[in-house]
Amino acid sequence: DFLRALHEIVPAFGASTDDLERCRLNGMVECGDRHKHIYQRAVLLVEQVKSSDRSPLVTCLLEGPSGSGKSSLAATVGIDSDFPYVKIISAEAMIGLHESTKCAQIAKVFEDAYKSPLSIIILDNIERLLEYIAIGPRFSNLISQTLMLLLKRTPPKGKKLLVFGTTSELGFLDSIGFCDTFSVTYNVPTLKTADAKKVLEQLNVFADNDIDAAAEALNDMPIKKLYMVVEMAAQGQQGGSSQAIFSGQAKINISHFYDILQDTVRY
Amino acid sequence: DFLRALHEIVPAFGASTDDLERCRLNGMVECGDRHKHIYQRAVLLVEQVKSSDRSPLVTCLLEGPSGSGKSSLAATVGIDSDFPYVKIISAEAMIGLHESTKCAQIAKVFEDAYKSPLSIIILDNIERLLEYIAIGPRFSNLISQTLMLLLKRTPPKGKKLLVFGTTSELGFLDSIGFCDTFSVTYNVPTLKTADAKKVLEQLNVFADNDIDAAAEALNDMPIKKLYMVVEMAAQGQQGGSSQAIFSGQAKINISHFYDILQDTVRY
Amino acid sequence: DFLRALHEIVPAFGASTDDLERCRLNGMVECGDRHKHIYQRAVLLVEQVKSSDRSPLVTCLLEGPSGSGKSSLAATVGIDSDFPYVKIISAEAMIGLHESTKCAQIAKVFEDAYKSPLSIIILDNIERLLEYIAIGPRFSNLISQTLMLLLKRTPPKGKKLLVFGTTSELGFLDSIGFCDTFSVTYNVPTLKTADAKKVLEQLNVFADNDIDAAAEALNDMPIKKLYMVVEMAAQGQQGGSSQAIFSGQAKINISHFYDILQDTVRY
Amino acid sequence: DFLRALHEIVPAFGASTDDLERCRLNGMVECGDRHKHIYQRAVLLVEQVKSSDRSPLVTCLLEGPSGSGKSSLAATVGIDSDFPYVKIISAEAMIGLHESTKCAQIAKVFEDAYKSPLSIIILDNIERLLEYIAIGPRFSNLISQTLMLLLKRTPPKGKKLLVFGTTSELGFLDSIGFCDTFSVTYNVPTLKTADAKKVLEQLNVFADNDIDAAAEALNDMPIKKLYMVVEMAAQGQQGGSSQAIFSGQAKINISHFYDILQDTVRY
Amino acid sequence: DFLRALHEIVPAFGASTDDLERCRLNGMVECGDRHKHIYQRAVLLVEQVKSSDRSPLVTCLLEGPSGSGKSSLAATVGIDSDFPYVKIISAEAMIGLHESTKCAQIAKVFEDAYKSPLSIIILDNIERLLEYIAIGPRFSNLISQTLMLLLKRTPPKGKKLLVFGTTSELGFLDSIGFCDTFSVTYNVPTLKTADAKKVLEQLNVFADNDIDAAAEALNDMPIKKLYMVVEMAAQGQQGGSSQAIFSGQAKINISHFYDILQDTVRY
Amino acid sequence: DFLRALHEIVPAFGASTDDLERCRLNGMVECGDRHKHIYQRAVLLVEQVKSSDRSPLVTCLLEGPSGSGKSSLAATVGIDSDFPYVKIISAEAMIGLHESTKCAQIAKVFEDAYKSPLSIIILDNIERLLEYIAIGPRFSNLISQTLMLLLKRTPPKGKKLLVFGTTSELGFLDSIGFCDTFSVTYNVPTLKTADAKKVLEQLNVFADNDIDAAAEALNDMPIKKLYMVVEMAAQGQQGGSSQAIFSGQAKINISHFYDILQDTVRY
Ligand SMILES: Nc1ncnc2c1ncn2[C@@H]1O[C@H](COP(=O)(O)OP(=O)(O)OP(=O)(O)O)[C@@H](O)[C@H]1O
Ligand SMILES: Nc1ncnc2c1ncn2[C@@H]1O[C@H](COP(=O)(O)OP(=O)(O)OP(=O)(O)O)[C@@H](O)[C@H]1O
Ligand SMILES: Nc1ncnc2c1ncn2[C@@H]1O[C@H](COP(=O)(O)OP(=O)(O)OP(=O)(O)O)[C@@H](O)[C@H]1O
Ligand SMILES: Nc1ncnc2c1ncn2[C@@H]1O[C@H](COP(=O)(O)OP(=O)(O)OP(=O)(O)O)[C@@H](O)[C@H]1O
Ligand SMILES: Nc1ncnc2c1ncn2[C@@H]1O[C@H](COP(=O)(O)OP(=O)(O)OP(=O)(O)O)[C@@H](O)[C@H]1O
Ligand SMILES: Nc1ncnc2c1ncn2[C@@H]1O[C@H](COP(=O)(O)OP(=O)(O)OP(=O)(O)O)[C@@H](O)[C@H]1O
Ligand SMILES: [Mg+2]
Ligand SMILES: [Mg+2]
Ligand SMILES: [Mg+2]
Ligand SMILES: [Mg+2]
Ligand SMILES: [Mg+2]
Ligand SMILES: [Mg+2]
Repeated sequence: DFLRALHEIVPAFGASTDDLERCRLNGMVECGDRHKHIYQRAVLLVEQVKSSDRSPLVTCLLEGPSGSGKSSLAATVGIDSDFPYVKIISAEAMIGLHESTKCAQIAKVFEDAYKSPLSIIILDNIERLLEYIAIGPRFSNLISQTLMLLLKRTPPKGKKLLVFGTTSELGFLDSIGFCDTFSVTYNVPTLKTADAKKVLEQLNVFADNDIDAAAEALNDMPIKKLYMVVEMAAQGQQGGSSQAIFSGQAKINISHFYDILQDTVRY
Repeated sequence: DFLRALHEIVPAFGASTDDLERCRLNGMVECGDRHKHIYQRAVLLVEQVKSSDRSPLVTCLLEGPSGSGKSSLAATVGIDSDFPYVKIISAEAMIGLHESTKCAQIAKVFEDAYKSPLSIIILDNIERLLEYIAIGPRFSNLISQTLMLLLKRTPPKGKKLLVFGTTSELGFLDSIGFCDTFSVTYNVPTLKTADAKKVLEQLNVFADNDIDAAAEALNDMPIKKLYMVVEMAAQGQQGGSSQAIFSGQAKINISHFYDILQDTVRY
Repeated sequence: DFLRALHEIVPAFGASTDDLERCRLNGMVECGDRHKHIYQRAVLLVEQVKSSDRSPLVTCLLEGPSGSGKSSLAATVGIDSDFPYVKIISAEAMIGLHESTKCAQIAKVFEDAYKSPLSIIILDNIERLLEYIAIGPRFSNLISQTLMLLLKRTPPKGKKLLVFGTTSELGFLDSIGFCDTFSVTYNVPTLKTADAKKVLEQLNVFADNDIDAAAEALNDMPIKKLYMVVEMAAQGQQGGSSQAIFSGQAKINISHFYDILQDTVRY
Repeated sequence: DFLRALHEIVPAFGASTDDLERCRLNGMVECGDRHKHIYQRAVLLVEQVKSSDRSPLVTCLLEGPSGSGKSSLAATVGIDSDFPYVKIISAEAMIGLHESTKCAQIAKVFEDAYKSPLSIIILDNIERLLEYIAIGPRFSNLISQTLMLLLKRTPPKGKKLLVFGTTSELGFLDSIGFCDTFSVTYNVPTLKTADAKKVLEQLNVFADNDIDAAAEALNDMPIKKLYMVVEMAAQGQQGGSSQAIFSGQAKINISHFYDILQDTVRY
Repeated sequence: DFLRALHEIVPAFGASTDDLERCRLNGMVECGDRHKHIYQRAVLLVEQVKSSDRSPLVTCLLEGPSGSGKSSLAATVGIDSDFPYVKIISAEAMIGLHESTKCAQIAKVFEDAYKSPLSIIILDNIERLLEYIAIGPRFSNLISQTLMLLLKRTPPKGKKLLVFGTTSELGFLDSIGFCDTFSVTYNVPTLKTADAKKVLEQLNVFADNDIDAAAEALNDMPIKKLYMVVEMAAQGQQGGSSQAIFSGQAKINISHFYDILQDTVRY
Repeated sequence: DFLRALHEIVPAFGASTDDLERCRLNGMVECGDRHKHIYQRAVLLVEQVKSSDRSPLVTCLLEGPSGSGKSSLAATVGIDSDFPYVKIISAEAMIGLHESTKCAQIAKVFEDAYKSPLSIIILDNIERLLEYIAIGPRFSNLISQTLMLLLKRTPPKGKKLLVFGTTSELGFLDSIGFCDTFSVTYNVPTLKTADAKKVLEQLNVFADNDIDAAAEALNDMPIKKLYMVVEMAAQGQQGGSSQAIFSGQAKINISHFYDILQDTVRY
């Protein structure tokens, strides 16, 4: 059944840049030193896999709060590498499938990778791949066992594989001994005031004397949430002002911005 | 199996205003500032989705006690928007179906929405969609995973989607990390004395010098329960008086009203 | 599967007075003020559903200890109403069926009711319908979800429905949030000494100077248990005396009555 | 499936005295006042069911330690009654059957009983029928629900049914609210010294001056265990002496008897 | 399904001495008074079943630490009896079978035994037959129920059955009320220093002045572990010395013996 | 089903040195006294099985932290033995198979071994074979029971079997009583500073005056992790330096080495 499922899947050899690009639809802006450092270290891992015969398998976990930029970072490294096989494994593409079918699809991606001399696989949102839910907790042991084995299985002679995982549930992964299977783990953080300010300057939607206050209010927010708040505030109290603001003709009203921010902060 | 189930469902493209209207059968009355504020903010979200290219997906959760008016509010916003695709997903329409069939039907609604440039989906009574029950607690992890993925999946290029969710089990949704998937959350409250009074004035079933006492007794009651108590009290002690009362010819006897109220308050 | 099951069931439209009469095989006697009050309020609900357009669905829970007379009361109200569709849903009629078949049968009764302008449905012994057992506790979530949805689903335009539920496990129903789905809840109690005396007088099986002592001994007993104890005691110590007693020729020996009572009280 | 199973069973109408006799293979001896009292009360219940129209269903639970004589007592009452349908339902006859098949067989016995004017059903070893095991605890909820419904279902007009249940797990039955479904419950106890002495005198295997000491040592033992200990002791230290002892030619050596007793008492 | 499984099994009537002999491959040596006492009492039970009509079913549990000699003891009694049907039921022979198939096979052995006038059945390693594992704990309730019923079911008229059970998980069996189903229980212990010395003398692998020290070091060890330690030590530090030792030409080096002993004792 | 599965598997008789070699891809270096001692003891067990008739089955567990060298050690002993049948059972080769299929494959390997006079079976990563996960904990009881039986089942007359197990979850195996099934258990440890220094000297990638500091920093690290850290550090801060370093032309920058080390140590 599992084997049959494995063979029924249409082979998808080679890099599907589309899927990777979807992870960073709105382009990338600079968002602080920590993000930059992680990107550089990830590039070093790409080099290591490429150049060393003693490292046929390197695995790296990117963890951090929801929306902090983990998937975009992994996708960017994948795109920037010149590896012939780069593939993202995401639960979004497997909605409603049975856990054994998911396992077969995941194993299939690894089998395909083993046919390429140099490969990158991104396991996006591992907790979702594992069908994790906090109450219980519940998750798929079948998929967990499969991933733990795949993350430690040496590729065939002459093949090399770099795996990135992303997760916002480090505690859970740790509690099932999943983290130890990764060679190295990096924390992708929320933005600090200074980082937020840098992003806001690039967006250019606040008046100059509001920008510090706005950045301060956004301290410790993930990049994704920052974008959403700015979008909501840009509509204005009565709606209709967003076009003027994003074209630079108007600025966001700082007090309306505070109101919006309060709605999104849970009481 | 899941995919087959997905395709067997007859496509239901476009807004089904009937289902929405069923959520507010008895029309809408004004019931206080908080309800009004939430309505206005919801309308701003409609605008944002319509006008901004950087917000292809916005999600909003309406939470509050049972009967506080969440579904009617969401339905009203859906009706008032001029979106070509507005659809309510309700467990009522899926009684007795297997969880995988429910998932397929839910995913189908999202797939249909992705074909429309502007869409609104109402996930009504999320705890019921998840088959939640407090003891255990038990719920469908399959449906939970599906909804969590659908609530974060970016629509195809050029399509925009606004999702409203309603729930009276915020604590549960929070405990499974479900709330964080929403861009913003609003609490739809019970009526305070002042709000109740406003509603009673519009109903015109109490004598003028009883109305304050009645409103006071109804403090902190959800709008739905208020309607039921008034109906029961209008029958009178011996029955038969309701027509006279709702046509304005008679008023509710305040002491009978208190008796009825006591029956509905659990001891 | 569920839908097929739904259609395979032979439609059972209209009131089946037989099933209702079986709930009160031995006729009804007066058994105290509380029972009377609940009966009167239940009749008011019948009126409300009949007369008001704003109350297409009213739901009422009768709860109390085992054997206190809940089912007979609900059946009596159903018989006394002049509604064209009155139906009792009882687990007794579904012994050994799979939970999904039970759901289908229950849903079928509601669908049938929606075809009648005025309907009463009695959900008898809800804890048994839910296959509840205290250890675990265990129960059918499928049936729970189905009932919770049916108890809140507005009937089609122009149709009206009154639902009575009975249970001796209020604590359980409360713990799964089931009680809040009812518009109103009444407690059907055991008999107090005064109530028991009234019943014993109607039965006429004790000597006049024993009747107060007997009623005192029966304090806080449900009506059903009272009947059983009287029957057992009427056999006499050697058996054979019951005919004489129920025909009024002899009286129950009070000290034998105490012996029997002690056997039935668990040590 | 359940219904089909129900019909596939060969109807077994009428009393199968064989099954009842198997419960008391070695005949019955007198074993004390408590046993006698319970027997007499059980006979009264037989009368009540036979003579009263208001008691179409009476249910009686016999509980007590393993081997105390519950099944033999119930079987004896069944044999002594002159009812046309007397049937024992025992898990022994359903080894390895699926729980739904067991339910069908049990329900079948009740259906058969409903065809007879007067019936007795013995539910032997209820905890075993429920597949109860202390760890968990685990048990079949399907069978539990079925039995609880059957124990409260009124027989058809004109038919009368007396049900005896036996169990050595009263605490468990209580914890699932099973005991309240019985009209009356009797405790069948172990033998006290005086009871044991009476039994030993009838067996005539001890020397006259040993009999008091032996009875003392057997205090608080169930009748079944008493028989086993006597048998073991009768073999003698080297074996071979039992025939002489049971034929009255020799007596059990009291000190060997003590040794054996110690082996059977768990340390 | 179960019944079909029951009939598909090839009947295995009569004693299969091969299986019994496999339990004591290396012959039996004397290993202390307690072992001897249990053997003698077991032989008495064989006599009792053979000679008494009132004991058609006798059941005896042998419990003790892993490797203490329970299976060999039971097998020896079985071989030494002159019963026409002696059969061992062992989980080893049912690896990978479904629990219902195991039940059918077990029931089959009992059915076969009922056809023989005198039978012995050995339930070897009951915890393994029950698929017991300490975490949870988990075990097969189906097999538990089956065994509990079989252990109490009286054989057909004129047939007699003696059952030995072995287990090293007395605590577990007790917690599921399994032990009470046995007529008598014996504890098969580890070897004390004196017992170990007796065994070592028979093996003749230590120098005379080492034997007391060796026996002391082996105190409280099960017979099986003792054999393994002696074997390992006999290899010598560099290997190759075992033949000389077991042929009596050399002796085990006592300090190497201590080293080995320490490896096998868990730190 | 299980039996069919058993026969469908293509027989794999004889030693598959390929699978064993894959466990030590990068060759073996000396890594300290403890590793050496365990290797020597394992070789003694090979001798014992070969030479003694009383030890047809010897089982040895190698336990220790992830990456400490357990599998390579077991594989090396297997390769160095001159046994005709040496086989490794690894979960990696059974990804996605159903637990009953895994059981059949495992049992098949033992059956094959029983056909060879001398066999070694390596149960690699037992916790993974058991599908163990810490939360719950969950694991396959079917596979556990199968392994526990296989680890105690005596091979057929004249056949001999040595089993090595490896695990990094000793606590778990202990808690299910799994460890007691092994004749002897050895702990394969992490490297101490002195061991790490020895390995680093053989690798020759640090400057002479850095090697002590590096070894100190690597104290208590498993051999596998040590290799990975050295590889990562060898890339250099800007990448590209690894070839020079491993060819001996350059040395690892000690401060970059510290940086890398810190990344891999979880905060
Ligand atoms: N450096 C960046 N510049 C601009 N936009 C960014 C940057 N990093 C992330 N984003 C945007 O922020 C959003 C969230 O980023 P991303 O999905 O990578 O976060 P995540 O950590 O993977 O979140 P989740 O935990 O929800 O999977 C994306 O829409 C992405 O386009
Ligand atoms: N503003 C309003 N004016 C008049 N009626 C209202 C208003 N809001 C709600 N109602 C009525 O109150 C009832 C309950 O409202 P609604 O179903 O929206 O509440 P809810 O919060 O969704 O309840 P639940 O938690 O049970 O789903 C409906 O019958 C609706 O018609
Ligand atoms: N007012 C009454 N007069 C005479 N008999 C009554 C009356 N009420 C109840 N009974 C009798 O008492 C018995 C138990 O009543 P009923 O079945 O209605 O109780 P219940 O509360 O539904 O019990 P349960 O919790 O077991 O379902 C019935 O046999 C019924 O005939
Ligand atoms: N009064 C009696 N005289 C002689 N033998 C009796 C008597 N009562 C019971 N026995 C014998 O004792 C044995 C056990 O009795 P029985 O099976 O009725 O006990 P039980 O309480 O049903 O036990 P269990 O709990 O194991 O089902 C039977 O073999 C029966 O023959
Ligand atoms: N009296 C004896 N003389 C010689 N060898 C014995 C003796 N008793 C047991 N043995 C040997 O010890 C080993 C273990 O004995 P056995 O299998 O009977 O123990 P057990 O208690 O059944 O163990 P387990 O709990 O593992 O089933 C067997 O190989 C058996 O040959
Ligand atoms: N003595 C050694 N010399 C050189 N390399 C070694 C040595 N021992 C182990 N290794 C290497 O270390 C790595 C890990 O060793 P191995 O897989 O045997 O560890 P393990 O304890 O089985 O780990 P796991 O718990 O993850 O299964 C392997 O790549 C192996 O080549
Ligand atoms: Mg992501
Ligand atoms: Mg709602
Ligand atoms: Mg009732
Ligand atoms: Mg019994
Ligand atoms: Mg054994
Ligand atoms: Mg390993």
